[in-house]
Amino acid sequence: MSDHDEAASRDPAGTRGVVPRQARALATRGAILTAAAEEFAGSSYHEASLSRILERSKVTKGALYFHFVSKESIALAVVDEMDLLCHDLVDRSNALGLDALRTAAQVTREVQDALTGSVMRAGQRLSTEGFAGPHRPGWPFRYWEEVFRDLFTRAAEEEILRPGIDPVSFSRMAVDTGAGAFVVSLGVSHLADLGRRVCENWELLLGCAAVPEWLEGWQAEGGMAAVLGPHLLDDRRDGRGWVADV
Amino acid sequence: MSDHDEAASRDPAGTRGVVPRQARALATRGAILTAAAEEFAGSSYHEASLSRILERSKVTKGALYFHFVSKESIALAVVDEMDLLCHDLVDRSNALGLDALRTAAQVTREVQDALTGSVMRAGQRLSTEGFAGPHRPGWPFRYWEEVFRDLFTRAAEEEILRPGIDPVSFSRMAVDTGAGAFVVSLGVSHLADLGRRVCENWELLLGCAAVPEWLEGWQAEGGMAAVLGPHLLDDRRDGRGWVADV
Repeated sequence: MSDHDEAASRDPAGTRGVVPRQARALATRGAILTAAAEEFAGSSYHEASLSRILERSKVTKGALYFHFVSKESIALAVVDEMDLLCHDLVDRSNALGLDALRTAAQVTREVQDALTGSVMRAGQRLSTEGFAGPHRPGWPFRYWEEVFRDLFTRAAEEEILRPGIDPVSFSRMAVDTGAGAFVVSLGVSHLADLGRRVCENWELLLGCAAVPEWLEGWQAEGGMAAVLGPHLLDDRRDGRGWVADV
Repeated sequence: MSDHDEAASRDPAGTRGVVPRQARALATRGAILTAAAEEFAGSSYHEASLSRILERSKVTKGALYFHFVSKESIALAVVDEMDLLCHDLVDRSNALGLDALRTAAQVTREVQDALTGSVMRAGQRLSTEGFAGPHRPGWPFRYWEEVFRDLFTRAAEEEILRPGIDPVSFSRMAVDTGAGAFVVSLGVSHLADLGRRVCENWELLLGCAAVPEWLEGWQAEGGMAAVLGPHLLDDRRDGRGWVADV
């Protein structure tokens, strides 16, 4: 499913049948956002070009300015889409009924899955460059700190976190490490080595923080490599990686 | 010592006395770079304004364009200055003759010291946004990976790294975590909580990777909090942090 289909599927179906003009407007907006996500995923904010977004979206200039007043407003709308994806993937991960550390690993897997799509890549780049928008201070870092703080607090209650590990410090470290893996991998390999970095980091994080009994079972299942699966395939590491492919 | 003085002090003193015109040119260039570092430390690349740099530097527009052809060329010159600072601080830390893990901690302290100056803050922001320049791919991340890989390899030889810890993976994690701490702290607190994040992350990293005998001695000395000292003072955490102060 493309990011565009995803965006469209969130629209209540009834509206589209009843009001064709609104349906067309939504389709146009979706086409612009899809094109914008591809542009912002492959370029920094200042390099991204409104005329390339226009060209990619195949809408008219008038239509683009009907929906968005500026490059910044398009960027913020892409971050809105990323916001929805993040909340959805956390809900899905929590719904699996796994223990807290396995849930944290699953969230990480879902983020990697989402990063193969341009909305998540664009949103992460934009957020890293400070484009979360004034209505969303600290996005997505504060959000991820809450998610991991809740999971690691639950892990402590489940007695699978080592007693010396503070769930709050550890959640900050998980977020710093994840945000840094994206930035560093973008800088050194156009995200081609992101899967491997994330895998190694989580092996180290969990090796450090989980109780030995939990680690034994986890390693028997194949550890983080088994969770990340397709993100560790060799072909992703070759060439210039995802960002250059869009 | 201000960043400007620092930049000026690297100029061979003889040149200035002998050729006054060159001395004036160097002073002008230094004033532009100091102003640019302050601008890029406080704003993302795209928000940074050439006219504010001009205003801050108190040089003429003609003088600015004599030295630099564009905003991008000024940004790259700021990253050049950061590059020098990084190499200097690593040399200084290595010269202390500490064991490899204490040297890694000292490098981290020196980076925090440097980040109180606008050149390092500006360089780190610019690098994070992809402004290292084509002649310096992956800067500064590849550089830090080499520095920490060498230190952790030496730590393994010194038998102070736990046998299960791979020095290469661990160096990547240290760099991811450090790069992420900067990005996240910038996003959530304008760098006000950076010292605390770095301290907690290194306590966790070293707690995970060092042998127990080393950790005992380290903790007796006060651990990472003793190394980071002034960066953990409460007043830094108040208000909007360093970036807003420039």
